[in-house]
Amino acid sequence: MIEKMHVADLFAFYGELLTEKQKDVLELYCLEDLSLGEIAEDLNISRQGVFDNVKRATKTLESYELKLGLMAKFNSNKMLFNDISQKMNDLSHVIKTSESLKDLKAMVNQVTEDVIRDIHSIEE
Amino acid sequence: MIEKMHVADLFAFYGELLTEKQKDVLELYCLEDLSLGEIAEDLNISRQGVFDNVKRATKTLESYELKLGLMAKFNSNKMLFNDISQKMNDLSHVIKTSESLKDLKAMVNQVTEDVIRDIHSIEE
Repeated sequence: MIEKMHVADLFAFYGELLTEKQKDVLELYCLEDLSLGEIAEDLNISRQGVFDNVKRATKTLESYELKLGLMAKFNSNKMLFNDISQKMNDLSHVIKTSESLKDLKAMVNQVTEDVIRDIHSIEE
Repeated sequence: MIEKMHVADLFAFYGELLTEKQKDVLELYCLEDLSLGEIAEDLNISRQGVFDNVKRATKTLESYELKLGLMAKFNSNKMLFNDISQKMNDLSHVIKTSESLKDLKAMVNQVTEDVIRDIHSIEE
């Protein structure tokens, strides 16, 4: 069976480029998490028809990602945002207990350097 | 005349979804920065033909952005990354002259809170 999470991710990005019919099917498949049989009943088409629709729509979505790679880029951005959030959280915990100005300066310096370098690295 | 920078931005995002011919024309127009007349000469088509191609391709690119809005999202991410970089730079300058542990703690606390809040705000 086609991996639902993967299809859902692609659908969230490129879904608006699909036909109305494909959107209807994928919405029930990914977002409502219905089975192929349930979708077939809902839309009054055959189970095979639903399967073909999901397969074709997924292929279309994958071809968009293959050409544009925007989901991969977005995921990199997201990972970096998470990483920065984590660093900020760590820092705000560290300062609570820090008792040395010198140590704190060194720590903050390290974090700011890391964050700036990471941000530059994704922009290259 | 169609705004070149705007077309170049859209082209960088969705260019791979255009036909080969449209890509050729927009590459010369946006990336090589040639005039319509120069492109016409280069590709051996009429100036009007070049203009029509640029216009149609731009419309196609705009329709992708209208449907997907990924360029707008990316630009928001980029602005936030720039903003975080700036905050890190400011902080690394401040710590050089800071002489009070208490003040430095307050400053770092403010920055970490701001950054975490800004990152959360784009994820909503």
